[in-house]
Amino acid sequence: MARKGDIEMVVVMDTKAGEADIDRVVREVEAVGGQAFVSAGKLRTVIGLVGDTERFMELPLATLPHVEQVIRVGKPYKLVARELHHEASVVNVGGVGVGEGTFTIIAGPCAIESEAQAMEAARMAQEMGAHILRGDAYKHRSSPYSFQGLARRGLEILKEMSLETGMPTVTEVLEPADVELVASYADLLRVGTRNMQNFPLLRECGRSGKPVMLKRGMASTIEEWLMAAEYVAREGSTDIILCERGIRTFEDAYRNTLDISAVPAAKALTHLPVIVDPSHSGGRKDLVAPLARAAVAAGADAIMIDVHPDPRTALCDGPQALTRDDIAELATELFAIAEAVGKKPATHAARG
Amino acid sequence: MARKGDIEMVVVMDTKAGEADIDRVVREVEAVGGQAFVSAGKLRTVIGLVGDTERFMELPLATLPHVEQVIRVGKPYKLVARELHHEASVVNVGGVGVGEGTFTIIAGPCAIESEAQAMEAARMAQEMGAHILRGDAYKHRSSPYSFQGLARRGLEILKEMSLETGMPTVTEVLEPADVELVASYADLLRVGTRNMQNFPLLRECGRSGKPVMLKRGMASTIEEWLMAAEYVAREGSTDIILCERGIRTFEDAYRNTLDISAVPAAKALTHLPVIVDPSHSGGRKDLVAPLARAAVAAGADAIMIDVHPDPRTALCDGPQALTRDDIAELATELFAIAEAVGKKPATHAARG
Amino acid sequence: MARKGDIEMVVVMDTKAGEADIDRVVREVEAVGGQAFVSAGKLRTVIGLVGDTERFMELPLATLPHVEQVIRVGKPYKLVARELHHEASVVNVGGVGVGEGTFTIIAGPCAIESEAQAMEAARMAQEMGAHILRGDAYKHRSSPYSFQGLARRGLEILKEMSLETGMPTVTEVLEPADVELVASYADLLRVGTRNMQNFPLLRECGRSGKPVMLKRGMASTIEEWLMAAEYVAREGSTDIILCERGIRTFEDAYRNTLDISAVPAAKALTHLPVIVDPSHSGGRKDLVAPLARAAVAAGADAIMIDVHPDPRTALCDGPQALTRDDIAELATELFAIAEAVGKKPATHAARG
Amino acid sequence: MARKGDIEMVVVMDTKAGEADIDRVVREVEAVGGQAFVSAGKLRTVIGLVGDTERFMELPLATLPHVEQVIRVGKPYKLVARELHHEASVVNVGGVGVGEGTFTIIAGPCAIESEAQAMEAARMAQEMGAHILRGDAYKHRSSPYSFQGLARRGLEILKEMSLETGMPTVTEVLEPADVELVASYADLLRVGTRNMQNFPLLRECGRSGKPVMLKRGMASTIEEWLMAAEYVAREGSTDIILCERGIRTFEDAYRNTLDISAVPAAKALTHLPVIVDPSHSGGRKDLVAPLARAAVAAGADAIMIDVHPDPRTALCDGPQALTRDDIAELATELFAIAEAVGKKPATHAARG
Repeated sequence: MARKGDIEMVVVMDTKAGEADIDRVVREVEAVGGQAFVSAGKLRTVIGLVGDTERFMELPLATLPHVEQVIRVGKPYKLVARELHHEASVVNVGGVGVGEGTFTIIAGPCAIESEAQAMEAARMAQEMGAHILRGDAYKHRSSPYSFQGLARRGLEILKEMSLETGMPTVTEVLEPADVELVASYADLLRVGTRNMQNFPLLRECGRSGKPVMLKRGMASTIEEWLMAAEYVAREGSTDIILCERGIRTFEDAYRNTLDISAVPAAKALTHLPVIVDPSHSGGRKDLVAPLARAAVAAGADAIMIDVHPDPRTALCDGPQALTRDDIAELATELFAIAEAVGKKPATHAARG
Repeated sequence: MARKGDIEMVVVMDTKAGEADIDRVVREVEAVGGQAFVSAGKLRTVIGLVGDTERFMELPLATLPHVEQVIRVGKPYKLVARELHHEASVVNVGGVGVGEGTFTIIAGPCAIESEAQAMEAARMAQEMGAHILRGDAYKHRSSPYSFQGLARRGLEILKEMSLETGMPTVTEVLEPADVELVASYADLLRVGTRNMQNFPLLRECGRSGKPVMLKRGMASTIEEWLMAAEYVAREGSTDIILCERGIRTFEDAYRNTLDISAVPAAKALTHLPVIVDPSHSGGRKDLVAPLARAAVAAGADAIMIDVHPDPRTALCDGPQALTRDDIAELATELFAIAEAVGKKPATHAARG
Repeated sequence: MARKGDIEMVVVMDTKAGEADIDRVVREVEAVGGQAFVSAGKLRTVIGLVGDTERFMELPLATLPHVEQVIRVGKPYKLVARELHHEASVVNVGGVGVGEGTFTIIAGPCAIESEAQAMEAARMAQEMGAHILRGDAYKHRSSPYSFQGLARRGLEILKEMSLETGMPTVTEVLEPADVELVASYADLLRVGTRNMQNFPLLRECGRSGKPVMLKRGMASTIEEWLMAAEYVAREGSTDIILCERGIRTFEDAYRNTLDISAVPAAKALTHLPVIVDPSHSGGRKDLVAPLARAAVAAGADAIMIDVHPDPRTALCDGPQALTRDDIAELATELFAIAEAVGKKPATHAARG
Repeated sequence: MARKGDIEMVVVMDTKAGEADIDRVVREVEAVGGQAFVSAGKLRTVIGLVGDTERFMELPLATLPHVEQVIRVGKPYKLVARELHHEASVVNVGGVGVGEGTFTIIAGPCAIESEAQAMEAARMAQEMGAHILRGDAYKHRSSPYSFQGLARRGLEILKEMSLETGMPTVTEVLEPADVELVASYADLLRVGTRNMQNFPLLRECGRSGKPVMLKRGMASTIEEWLMAAEYVAREGSTDIILCERGIRTFEDAYRNTLDISAVPAAKALTHLPVIVDPSHSGGRKDLVAPLARAAVAAGADAIMIDVHPDPRTALCDGPQALTRDDIAELATELFAIAEAVGKKPATHAARG
């Protein structure tokens, strides 16, 4: 990552570029307030640009005569970049620290469908050793004909789940107008994959005073994901957790393809915690356990899992929910793998 | 597309399925209020489901014993499907009809940067023979450090552009709270690629009383695109124009890959007009003309093009804007190709 | 494209790089026989590398201390690059010139299934105004249980088709051992999408004395495609025709997604003709005509179409074949669009 | 998977289909020797097809009147499918059993560059606890200007590596004509990602008498991968090891995207061992260890890793090779994770 005054773009001239061609590039850059540093090699000239890189990106430099390539150097994000914050961040979620060195389990129902279903799922999460509860009151569905969530009543049930188990909670927020309400009930706001670049929503979440979990867009690059986190961070807080949840590829054997490489690759670029959602990645129950194990082995700081007391009656994503029979063995495996890669279980929140 | 009472899902049992296995599927379906029609073939049994398909989709049917495949039959969208509306729709945009049989050009600046730039771009669009003006007051940028638009002042300039040229206008709207304001200035609301599944925004646009242009998400399937249009349509109006603008693939020679097949394929599934944005598809000026020509040849009902009087000073997407030198020849080619495929130029709006 | 002695790689140091770090890069490059030109800007140092770029690519330069980026400048292909061959090439296929300025139709059966079927399809191609016949004797099938072609008997029928119609022919070759035989029957050898990087096969085709049509790999970048063409060209001949045939994406509404942008983008990089196969791109008959029209409009030098006298009996790709009812109107449209974009119909081969 | 006589395709008629429409489908199927079983539901008719499914696939059934969908049921591969071979296969590689229940490490140089380099890399592999040596004499390079391998001399060195360490070996074979030679030197033949659908090569490998490692094509679905394995298996041997090595996606932060879900998903479909190559997946050294750990945690039966005594001098893929400093800790972690998921280290080959 670059700081003010750094070269953040490089223009490579081709071997036939003359002085006039080079001057033209320099003038274009200076015209928008930038500085251009010309480094003439024996055969090829390279021009480094200092100033407002976002502005340079809009210039049609690549179409000028004898410009061979225009290359962005340095990272377009700043606040979330690891280069200026070497220490990995630990994000406090209602008393549970999520971040490097520890391993956290987030579990609960995909959607809150009723008080009975949600409370039972919360108890399953607790038995499994989870540290944070999930449960959604607002659902983001591809079809307008699908179940859209219990809204405010769902948030009230979420609060009961937290009181009953002593665990902090995470829930999705869908639009800017809902942020304040949702933040008054949950400990961690989640922005979903389809909203990763809903910048008005990101800004509102950044101002909420609560930490934010940002799911990766299913077709977003790691750089775009970090730029979206930068939108949140600019509002004042870097209490942000990044969640990989599968990307869209040509493979149709599963709903999405978990990009396991994104875990170590993102951690190398940012100081923020990186976690994995193995339930939504595959959309298939039989893939949840192997993907959860892989996530921990790759260095994820937490995993987030859907559980349901009776998936046959689920109103949302029943095909991927784990049941009581599945969870004990999985938790044992996950903690063993965490230990093998040098991570301790997170500390449970102190009961209020 | 299926109507109430149709079979919309089929469960295929494997060859070892016994009566008890078949009964189990039937019971699961009936438990959520559905009906199951069992068709026992010589070797394999197939069960057709009638009822609430969205509800069936949440059942873990695929995990039941001896279920081989669970297949959705029929389309999940209804109001925008061609099957029940055989006539292609023509959408009236401030007096210009966009739809089958005609060819419309939409042109103007990507972003409204200043009154002078925007008015000059509007005149360029007019000289080119365009029917509708584009120009954005709110920009959706991947980076928080990029130019974000002139907001309300931009909308005022858009209105002036319309008055000066007599052309109706289209502009982007970014969040639900802005819909009413934007609708009071523009003739057509545009929802951008990153917002294709921002359902609260879609709903608000659907209630605005103005037609809506829905860009395809850069990693959305055609089915998801039509489902998003269904969210708009459910609010009461099917005045919706679908805009293909390039999808995300592995190829990095251009920003996105124009999915030209989506034009005929979407038109086969929906009665809505389908148009193409060749400027944002490639992000490269040299690709705009060939992609625009290809779009018309493939049957697009309109194309939307960025023009700029001086791309060197553009605050947004300068590398792809056409200039005055480019547009006359392109327009001639486009109208010739439209004729070759049986389309007439759209009628210009009658001046108020 | 770069010539011997050009800088073809640039190493960008980060802002904390000291002299020792820069020296280390220089030493690594010199150790493998290269030269390094250091251009120290005010804040950041950029090092240009001259020498064996392929060799530099194997060096772990990006892992050296304070190296921020390692960038390849210039193109890795030489013989097929447009930069050194400004004139577009015209490839002579048995008397038909394929290339810029003209428009060629290649048509015929996907597979040669029988003499009757193939001769009838050849006559259909002729009626349509096609210039070159297609017809495969060897089929490359994903399943070992699918029809694999008539082999040598198919080649004999191909020869008869050519004699009957006076048209030159193109057919697929699957393995190096078959090249000589196939080249003795056909005028143009085709390398299929799954073989685009079958380099032993490419080399053998390059030595055959016949021109080569190289289909793009369904997940290959344009650069990889041109590198594959370079393998052929290095054997002595640049009589190579590039054929775009759809790439693999997330969209499942069609078999592959025609990458229409690849036509103008590849033509900007290479002097070789670029053509399109609209039949295999979509795998759906209803898409063939719109995609063929789009290809011509985008500047393709030829299109290649499957026709079949009776698709119900086809042994290969029946769902996409055009019939006698489809072809006359399509040909009229294609020639009209070709004219609109400044292309004349190719000249038919003089009958022997 | 289906057996002879099973329904393998289902044709779903739409709700307007009359008897004549249904008859037409039946006749088309019978015309190519198939049987059609009509199951009329209350509202919709479903027709099951029994016979030669590959033949049915070529019929244009989907274009017949009132056919809504044509669905393939059952799997197109047979010999490699798990359904008929419930027991997971263990493949014997020169005395080392690769398969379920055990965990095997394959390590060695990417390319054999010289006797000294290769022998040193072999010793590194041995120190790490590897069971099988890798080392390539023939390299498949995107550029014709890259190092292409030492050919026969490389095979001789591979043999020395094996004699020195007592370990069996795996090496790549590029074309059918080389199979016999390569099989006389190596214990396991490897078919590379770009050759996954080089069917003449697959057939030749299947006849060689040696086990075959089949890398997944970088844009191949799991089904295509298993179909390719079926080509090998049809030649008489199911001693086949499947190797996931990263797929092509839009993400450009790494060379390819490791598809970790493919490990459990493929193992559910086939009885063959499934392994992972974490070195070529990412092409980045810092990703090798996390991806290797993830692979074991997800259930991979083996991993294959590039090691190099001095990556600075590597002629191929230097940026991803592990060095002596990296391997001891990694091996410890991998064996610990293997234990956590219930796998024992493979048994080393008994020294001849």
